Parts: sequence; structure tokens; C-alpha cells
Amino acid sequence: MSNPRFATPAAVEAAFYAAFAATDLDAMEAVWAPGLHTLCIHPGGPLLRGKPAVIQSWMEIFSGAEPPVVEHDLIESFEGKDLCVRLVEERIRPRGRPPEDANLVLATNVYVLDAHGWHLGEHHASLPLIPRREGKQKDAPRLH
Amino acid sequence: MSNPRFATPAAVEAAFYAAFAATDLDAMEAVWAPGLHTLCIHPGGPLLRGKPAVIQSWMEIFSGAEPPVVEHDLIESFEGKDLCVRLVEERIRPRGRPPEDANLVLATNVYVLDAHGWHLGEHHASLPLIPRREGKQKDAPRLH
Repeated sequence: MSNPRFATPAAVEAAFYAAFAATDLDAMEAVWAPGLHTLCIHPGGPLLRGKPAVIQSWMEIFSGAEPPVVEHDLIESFEGKDLCVRLVEERIRPRGRPPEDANLVLATNVYVLDAHGWHLGEHHASLPLIPRREGKQKDAPRLH
Repeated sequence: MSNPRFATPAAVEAAFYAAFAATDLDAMEAVWAPGLHTLCIHPGGPLLRGKPAVIQSWMEIFSGAEPPVVEHDLIESFEGKDLCVRLVEERIRPRGRPPEDANLVLATNVYVLDAHGWHLGEHHASLPLIPRREGKQKDAPRLH
């Protein structure tokens, strides 16, 4: 199968979350930029650097897993000519569980344009462990 | 005091970490892009959106705090014409404590160029809670 050619960052992003929801490793591999200039931080995880390490992590996540329900909403984007950053709110839950059981994840996705179209260059995800207080954002993080 | 004009993303970044280490709110305010297109996620924290919410969070962090030791190393960067992403490893510790007591933080910093020079548009920080295994990165994150 030849790799798809993504014309926009949004197209890469849709393919990324579709691959995640389908636990489809080939499709996941196709969205990432090739080479070592590739970064992934799963929630609470260490830095994974280089496409081989990144893809291995997704292989382990997909291994034996039931395809989850993955919903995502774009919160904000920074758009450059050949670089794009999209902050996304992800809601992930096992299939058959109600939306209120979803885990909320914040992800900064960095997209790069090269001769082969747009790809995902970095995915930095984190869990908002400190709850947002009602009314005002007055959380006091322990560490900056 | 007129705001400094930052000629490069690296200059903004140096000023950001200097302001952090000095707990200097004016200097911190100067590095961030103006307006509502500004995002900050402290480690384990919720999304803070818009410069007022972002600066308030730094005010709370700095309030009553001793200036910490903040070391940072650039891990990787994605450089566009008017947009730049820098992944940084931060090591933060109270003054007087040895380097091995530092807390490790991974931060994705997004810089934007406008008519007033480069500014920080997004800071997404997270704690690598899941330790990296020796030799291989075989961590199994609970959530993607």
C-alpha cells in the first residue's frame, strides 16, 4: 500500500486519531514524519525520540488492546507556511462506556511540511491531573 | 519600562527561563504573545487560555516562592519562518539543593513572530511520571 499524501495538517490529524481509534499500526506509521526528527510524549511518559521508538510505543499500546473510542476537538492552532501547531483536547474511553467515563488528555500536535506533504512531527500529550476549579482557573500547580 | 524586542525564538526562551528563575512577573509578562491566542499548560495542570489567565498563573506560582534554580536544555526544534517549536528538558530545584534533587519537566514551547518580534505563544509542560526503563524505552503508558 502506498502511503497517503496529506495535503493539510488537519488531514494528518484526522488520520492520526482514526489510526488510534482503529489501533491500526500501518495507518499510524503513515502519519508520522520519517527519520529521527520525530518526538512523542505519551501522558505521563518519557520522551520518545525518532520514528522507530515512536512507532514501537504505538505498537505496544495497540498490542492486545480493544479499539477505543477517541474523540478530539481542536482548541487552538498556530499556522505557519511549513509548520503548524494544533492544541487538541482528546477524550478516550473503552468502547461501550459512556462519554462521562472518558479520560481527558491535552495534546500539542506539531505538523511539518516536506516534499511528501504534511506529517506529524511531535505529539506531546498530558493528563490534566489538577482539576480546574469552578468559575476561576486558580489552580496552584506544584511545579511551575 | 518598554518591553524588550526579541529577535529570535531562542532569545524569548532564554528570557522566559530567566524570568522563571528570578520569579520576575514583569519579565515573564514580556515574553508572552499578547491577546487570547496564548496557551499554557503547567505540569499536571489544566489548559490556561489567553494571556490574562496565563499571567495570573505565573503570579500565583511566583507568589511567596523563593527563586528556584531552573536549568534547561534544548532537545529538538522545528523551525518555520514565523513559527517555531522547541522541545526543552527543564530541571527545576530549590536553591541550595543538589542537582539530583531537581524535578525533570518536558516542555514544548511554541514561538510566534509578529510585528513586535518573537513571543511565546504556547508552553505545554509535563512530568515524565512513568520512569524510562534501562536500555530500552519499553514503557507502557496507561493512556495512549
